[in-house]
Amino acid sequence: MARIVQKYGGTSVGSVEKIENVADRVTRAAEAGSELIVVVSAMGKSTDQLVGLANDITEHPSKREMDMLLSTGEQVTISLLTMALLKRGVEAVSYTGGQAGILTEATHGNARIKEIDSERLKNQLEAGKVLVVAGFQGVTEDGSITTLGRGGSDTTAVALAAAVEADRCEIYTDVTGVFTTDPRYVKKARKLQAVSYDEMLEMANLGAGVLHPRAVEFAKNYEVPLMVASSMVEETGTMIEEEVTVEKNLIVRGIAFENDVTKVTVAGLPNRMDTLPKLFSILSSNGVNVDIIIQNQYDEDHVNISFSITQCSLKETVACLEQAKNELEFEHLYHEEDLAKVSIVGSGMISNPGVAATMFEALAKNEIFIKMVSTSEIKVSAVVSEDDMVMAVEVLHDAFKLDEVHEEQAAQLV
Amino acid sequence: MARIVQKYGGTSVGSVEKIENVADRVTRAAEAGSELIVVVSAMGKSTDQLVGLANDITEHPSKREMDMLLSTGEQVTISLLTMALLKRGVEAVSYTGGQAGILTEATHGNARIKEIDSERLKNQLEAGKVLVVAGFQGVTEDGSITTLGRGGSDTTAVALAAAVEADRCEIYTDVTGVFTTDPRYVKKARKLQAVSYDEMLEMANLGAGVLHPRAVEFAKNYEVPLMVASSMVEETGTMIEEEVTVEKNLIVRGIAFENDVTKVTVAGLPNRMDTLPKLFSILSSNGVNVDIIIQNQYDEDHVNISFSITQCSLKETVACLEQAKNELEFEHLYHEEDLAKVSIVGSGMISNPGVAATMFEALAKNEIFIKMVSTSEIKVSAVVSEDDMVMAVEVLHDAFKLDEVHEEQAAQLV
Repeated sequence: MARIVQKYGGTSVGSVEKIENVADRVTRAAEAGSELIVVVSAMGKSTDQLVGLANDITEHPSKREMDMLLSTGEQVTISLLTMALLKRGVEAVSYTGGQAGILTEATHGNARIKEIDSERLKNQLEAGKVLVVAGFQGVTEDGSITTLGRGGSDTTAVALAAAVEADRCEIYTDVTGVFTTDPRYVKKARKLQAVSYDEMLEMANLGAGVLHPRAVEFAKNYEVPLMVASSMVEETGTMIEEEVTVEKNLIVRGIAFENDVTKVTVAGLPNRMDTLPKLFSILSSNGVNVDIIIQNQYDEDHVNISFSITQCSLKETVACLEQAKNELEFEHLYHEEDLAKVSIVGSGMISNPGVAATMFEALAKNEIFIKMVSTSEIKVSAVVSEDDMVMAVEVLHDAFKLDEVHEEQAAQLV
Repeated sequence: MARIVQKYGGTSVGSVEKIENVADRVTRAAEAGSELIVVVSAMGKSTDQLVGLANDITEHPSKREMDMLLSTGEQVTISLLTMALLKRGVEAVSYTGGQAGILTEATHGNARIKEIDSERLKNQLEAGKVLVVAGFQGVTEDGSITTLGRGGSDTTAVALAAAVEADRCEIYTDVTGVFTTDPRYVKKARKLQAVSYDEMLEMANLGAGVLHPRAVEFAKNYEVPLMVASSMVEETGTMIEEEVTVEKNLIVRGIAFENDVTKVTVAGLPNRMDTLPKLFSILSSNGVNVDIIIQNQYDEDHVNISFSITQCSLKETVACLEQAKNELEFEHLYHEEDLAKVSIVGSGMISNPGVAATMFEALAKNEIFIKMVSTSEIKVSAVVSEDDMVMAVEVLHDAFKLDEVHEEQAAQLV
């Protein structure tokens, strides 16, 4: 008998009708004989309404009290879904995060799961119950309610799957799976049958936040097979697991991209051991998140360091660097806004040294100028002008033939 | 330093503005140096909205899941009120029923409080915190959320007051206190300065459910002094305590009344020992709540038994009695609808045998026909036609001079 954790996000449970739809799906899975834990988020806009109430009272609500407030959203959904399941004759029972044994750190608003006491859940699963658990929340050791921050419900689902040793964790959302690139921008984008955890992490921003990186990381660490599929359409989704059994011959599996990238260059820094650590510890202590980093020689005694940040941290970045000018001993500070990052992702590229060259050629042929480059074992990123972003993605999608279903995969799909 | 439990009901916290108003009041009490526990209900119509969602899904929602759903209402209020208090610089912290240590029986929808683990609350009070606790809810021993049923938040407040040995429990509501009779019907109705627990119990239905009998009972058992006052108007309320120190010379303290009363007569029952117990155990096992009971001789071997019920249980009553006709061996079953019960209440009447006579005379003089009578140590009730109800209350209010403030009280009020 398969033990499965299913997760339905806010849009999938946004109304009574949608909750009934989820109940139908869960009922079918239960009738098919699976042991089931169902993790749900708050109904559609209900979290926004709760935040609105808090903001009517204060601009700076206590984080503990925000958690107390927001956790009611999921609690409403679990009770309603459980009622809908009981109506269908499914023996269901609802649990808040705390009741499900999810113990977190005491960091309100962004708590990490420390431990899951899964005895009760396992006993109930073995007794044939369908367990409906509130996502996004847990309790501290002293019983205070915490929330898990962004991607919290995905993390709950994966963590529960790991704790009860589930066969897989199914994430139902408003897209039908993971695509070669964002189908809203590129018409030829194609749904992938499978990706690896690392590829998924690199493509995290594809398809409007299909899956939160934190949840993917968790799934990777505990080797929980994930599936992403639509909560509305009956269609096979995308599997995320360590061994990608199909589409092996795809060197590049997808193209990720994001805009609002800004490049900052600190020019004429002393060429010393402590320059890099000093620079980036100043940035990190000011809360600036840096993505790509490039170091160039400037003259014999000096280097230039460029890095990319998101648009919204530019002001802070410039301010904290100007303040540290004497300490860092740099000569100039430049920045360039309205850039975008386009990345090709695929675990096959490790053994294919020509991949980056193919990428650069394709972009050059289309007169797309590359301003920064960064590579990892499964990704090559290029920073380009924001105006060139969509064209760059289309060009690369064609160059790596991502719209073609490859033979091996086609054979399996038939 | 006074230790006080304050309770604010649903209308008093029905909007963000009203929550701010409650926060102002709590802040003043905290600044005056009181140790405070504040118990709140769900915001205004929020419980109705949650019930509506459940009813959209099923006509017969699971009671456990209803408790899971409804308990979110108070949880929203405690977090918002706590934010409003923190904004005012008051060190406040919110607790759900479970977090406050309120342990109940496992009867979902109408649980009774079994025990309160008040260690944490006492420690926090002594540390100078204002504790904001969700009314109407608790947890079972295995951690399931329960609700306390009607009057639940009042009961929470009184139970917490007993558990932390508070000096008093203040119930803030939409009326300014307990009146001699319902001011919506009788213009001359006057607010009382104090009543005893028993008088309050007998007048429970005065002034639109000022205080739930269960809470009064609890307060009486644990000798918790209660105060009922308005959450909107700054005005001394009514004290409810064992020793009523003022208005002692008031033989009758108030006049309670209710409509929708139906009289049922079972005629020609065998005059045997087991007739009464058999009849009323049949009624109670069918969930029929009986109020006044009268037994008359019919002939040497037979008796008539009349009792009053609420209009809405008439159908069930007739059905279960007709079904038990052979077992009970009665001859006829009659009923009379559209009646009302008018009661004079006052602990002074025990030593005043003329009180009932004064009541009957006053009603007779105004041609109000009495259909049933029932007496207790502190109450005389008369069942009259519903059409006569308001006139009966006015006549009795005048007969017992309830609109006059008596000398002793007047002296103290100056």
